[in-house]
Amino acid sequence: MREQSTLRGRLRHIIFDYDTLPAKAFDLALIVAISCSVLVVMLDSVGPLHTLYGPLFLRLEWFFTFLFSIEYLLRIYTAKSAARYMRSFFGIIDVLSIFPTWLSLFIPGTQYLLVIRFFRVLRIFRLLKLMQYVKEANFVRDSIAASARKIFVFLFFVFVLASIVGGLMYMIEGEENGFRSIPEGIYWAIVTVTTVGYGDISPQTTIGRVLAALLMITGYSVIAVPTGIVTSEMSALRRSRGKEVYCPNCPSAVHSDDSRFCRYCGTRLQKPEEG
Amino acid sequence: MREQSTLRGRLRHIIFDYDTLPAKAFDLALIVAISCSVLVVMLDSVGPLHTLYGPLFLRLEWFFTFLFSIEYLLRIYTAKSAARYMRSFFGIIDVLSIFPTWLSLFIPGTQYLLVIRFFRVLRIFRLLKLMQYVKEANFVRDSIAASARKIFVFLFFVFVLASIVGGLMYMIEGEENGFRSIPEGIYWAIVTVTTVGYGDISPQTTIGRVLAALLMITGYSVIAVPTGIVTSEMSALRRSRGKEVYCPNCPSAVHSDDSRFCRYCGTRLQKPEEG
Amino acid sequence: MREQSTLRGRLRHIIFDYDTLPAKAFDLALIVAISCSVLVVMLDSVGPLHTLYGPLFLRLEWFFTFLFSIEYLLRIYTAKSAARYMRSFFGIIDVLSIFPTWLSLFIPGTQYLLVIRFFRVLRIFRLLKLMQYVKEANFVRDSIAASARKIFVFLFFVFVLASIVGGLMYMIEGEENGFRSIPEGIYWAIVTVTTVGYGDISPQTTIGRVLAALLMITGYSVIAVPTGIVTSEMSALRRSRGKEVYCPNCPSAVHSDDSRFCRYCGTRLQKPEEG
Amino acid sequence: MREQSTLRGRLRHIIFDYDTLPAKAFDLALIVAISCSVLVVMLDSVGPLHTLYGPLFLRLEWFFTFLFSIEYLLRIYTAKSAARYMRSFFGIIDVLSIFPTWLSLFIPGTQYLLVIRFFRVLRIFRLLKLMQYVKEANFVRDSIAASARKIFVFLFFVFVLASIVGGLMYMIEGEENGFRSIPEGIYWAIVTVTTVGYGDISPQTTIGRVLAALLMITGYSVIAVPTGIVTSEMSALRRSRGKEVYCPNCPSAVHSDDSRFCRYCGTRLQKPEEG
Repeated sequence: MREQSTLRGRLRHIIFDYDTLPAKAFDLALIVAISCSVLVVMLDSVGPLHTLYGPLFLRLEWFFTFLFSIEYLLRIYTAKSAARYMRSFFGIIDVLSIFPTWLSLFIPGTQYLLVIRFFRVLRIFRLLKLMQYVKEANFVRDSIAASARKIFVFLFFVFVLASIVGGLMYMIEGEENGFRSIPEGIYWAIVTVTTVGYGDISPQTTIGRVLAALLMITGYSVIAVPTGIVTSEMSALRRSRGKEVYCPNCPSAVHSDDSRFCRYCGTRLQKPEEG
Repeated sequence: MREQSTLRGRLRHIIFDYDTLPAKAFDLALIVAISCSVLVVMLDSVGPLHTLYGPLFLRLEWFFTFLFSIEYLLRIYTAKSAARYMRSFFGIIDVLSIFPTWLSLFIPGTQYLLVIRFFRVLRIFRLLKLMQYVKEANFVRDSIAASARKIFVFLFFVFVLASIVGGLMYMIEGEENGFRSIPEGIYWAIVTVTTVGYGDISPQTTIGRVLAALLMITGYSVIAVPTGIVTSEMSALRRSRGKEVYCPNCPSAVHSDDSRFCRYCGTRLQKPEEG
Repeated sequence: MREQSTLRGRLRHIIFDYDTLPAKAFDLALIVAISCSVLVVMLDSVGPLHTLYGPLFLRLEWFFTFLFSIEYLLRIYTAKSAARYMRSFFGIIDVLSIFPTWLSLFIPGTQYLLVIRFFRVLRIFRLLKLMQYVKEANFVRDSIAASARKIFVFLFFVFVLASIVGGLMYMIEGEENGFRSIPEGIYWAIVTVTTVGYGDISPQTTIGRVLAALLMITGYSVIAVPTGIVTSEMSALRRSRGKEVYCPNCPSAVHSDDSRFCRYCGTRLQKPEEG
Repeated sequence: MREQSTLRGRLRHIIFDYDTLPAKAFDLALIVAISCSVLVVMLDSVGPLHTLYGPLFLRLEWFFTFLFSIEYLLRIYTAKSAARYMRSFFGIIDVLSIFPTWLSLFIPGTQYLLVIRFFRVLRIFRLLKLMQYVKEANFVRDSIAASARKIFVFLFFVFVLASIVGGLMYMIEGEENGFRSIPEGIYWAIVTVTTVGYGDISPQTTIGRVLAALLMITGYSVIAVPTGIVTSEMSALRRSRGKEVYCPNCPSAVHSDDSRFCRYCGTRLQKPEEG
């Protein structure tokens, strides 16, 4: 259990947990701050607004950088293990999100730094915790994790298909119809097989269109594969998460709630109290 | 039970219910009127037709406004609780759908009023009741409601992904390739991840296209997630809607509610009390 | 049982059935003829080919018309009930597919007659019977039929949504951005919500794009609804089609193959022989 | 069991298997080589790179061709049955992937040979074996195989629909709106029904757009059919892959194969013989 006697302990609780009012308040404030800072980055990218409010945006950018820097230092100070926090995913996100602005002091800030700065938005996922969506988030995450390998196989197939069709289209359509290279053909094939279909490149020759039609129909029907995978994983996950009975002898054993005897040691099981 | 002795009671029955002939007739008439009024708004928006039949459309608009105003007053008069009706969803829709035309007497009608007027079409959902599609509608609604939280998590993820990729694309492609701002980049990312793909904005640089391809493939396969969620909810809903009977001898045996004898030991089963 | 002694009986068997060699041969020949005739119509529509082979195509068109006319007369002659055949779906298709060419003798053939002529391709569905895909076709048809009402509710919702968003976009974007009328706005909304996304019309204003993005995300995730409906119907259909046991007393009663007693009369059931 | 005493046996083991270190190493090297060779073909197709590094790419192309030729000869030499290998799918792929370069000695290499050369990428599927994704790959393959006939019926329907709508659109829109022939109309219909929507051809007339909207909504909702098919096949496949144990006392009870006692009566269960 957590010791909250010291200031450090209390701070840690407020910063890292989300089960009491102050901790919730901190997280909420943080999310608001992140949203605002991201909003500033967004608006600053809009030409007209930049010319009008550029300096204001810069000042705000610095304000948020200070804020997040203080937060970062507090996290390092209060974390049970500073090292583990700094090496953690969000630890890295946190430092990366403040780093660019500081760096721009020494190197004039290029737009490429913005790339890093923008990852700050990931912190917003804490909102799910605040809104008690953790169970749902885990369910989605688990079912994706359980499907990951099968989905990988599927995407691998899609990519190989796209490569071959992309190569074929480059030869069939050629540069005069916008397929200027095989990589471009593959890009077109992915745009097509995923049914996005920008139309920035589209086949003109008859045989090219026949091949394109086949690719579309393939993409249109193989979408059924990942869907089927995830769906059957989710149904399985749901079933496995039904009411469960535990055996007094085999703590590990989980039984469906219609079991009357442990299927490992034959002991009579106690029904769980209905909640 | 409803008292239909008074005129008010009879009117209320006709207006709010849909189980007797006059009530059905009223609803049908109302839907026809709504469809016509919406049709008028539509046709009036077509330039050539407006120049030809503008005055006629205006007269029809007023005719329907009178009609719906009378209906609204009748509803207030006959409703069990006028206040509750006026605060109800359709109560608000009803007043909003007549409000703009009346307002246009004092303020010359702007097209923005049309916005409100167009919500009138929502009333058409009563058609489902007329066609006895309520059970199906409820099934769809319930399964969506049961999936809502998981779907929210999913859409939250999609939106964060779109924001980050949109930000990245703004930096990679830049204004010269149509990504004039981060919000525009996010708009493009949503167009792409949902596989809509207008092509009004599309990446030109190699790295931009690689990132776009990754986003497309992500959007193409993560569609499996909401589908899986809704499907497993629906299957669960179907199962849970089958009433079940238990056999006193075979605790394991579950019987569909049309069973009169246990199919394992032949014991006569007790029907469950209807809930 | 069919009497095949008379010529008429034998012809009827060959034309309407597909379980013996001659009947199969007839169907196959018919499908080849249909495919060729449709191919002729297609190629004749290609400008260059028409100028080159126009007269040839016309002669072929007449050849197929004669062929199908003879087939039609034979069907009327051999059908158990000529009237029922002529009123049947394929009976109408058959006559419609020959009618236009004959009519073109009196009225110079307009392209609109082609519309009718093209329905001939529907006859090709008999291929499924030839290839013994009837069971699969029925499975697909039954599951769609079982989902029809729920899907109707869904499409009804999508259409109402498209109408409202289409109306809103007309007001937001206006004619200058290609939304020249509400019907056009609704067309755009359908193009968007179904994730087709031609890009022939696309929003330009910020608020228009926000609304478009919301519509895309809706269309992207509500696709889960029909999918869920059909999937759960199909799974239910599969289960209900599992091995079944019949009770000697209650002919109507169907029991899952793990039943030992009829659940209606308690009679001991006989296991079916494994096939 | 494999005899590895002879050199031939040892080579065969290394080339055809993937369960020991040397065999794994060989496969990995092969995949790297294939990837590089494909990469060379790709880069060579990029105009600027070709002008710069054309000769280098040619030399690399020859290097890989020698490599794969040696591999091919080794496979013929070591294969249990050289004839069966040469007639196998990958046997043909292997020879086709080296054939064009050799041929280009006698006939100046046309781009059409590239088509064949590009199939080499298929060999990369061995990566799945290396990464032990065979089980997942088989699961996906089996469920697709099980759905194949139903999906064929579905695609058949989609194609007939596309043909008819394509024909109709040609007549409705005509050449002036980009529908220059029925085949082009069918191409458009496929682009639309699969929700790809390039927008290179799009309807302009009101009736054309109404028909297009109907086609989109059809395509948008019938995607549910293949999805439902594959999903229910996958769920069935999952269930059928769980080995089951039966209790001698409770005929109804089905136990997962890790059960040692019946969960209804506590009787000790017999394990089934592994098949």
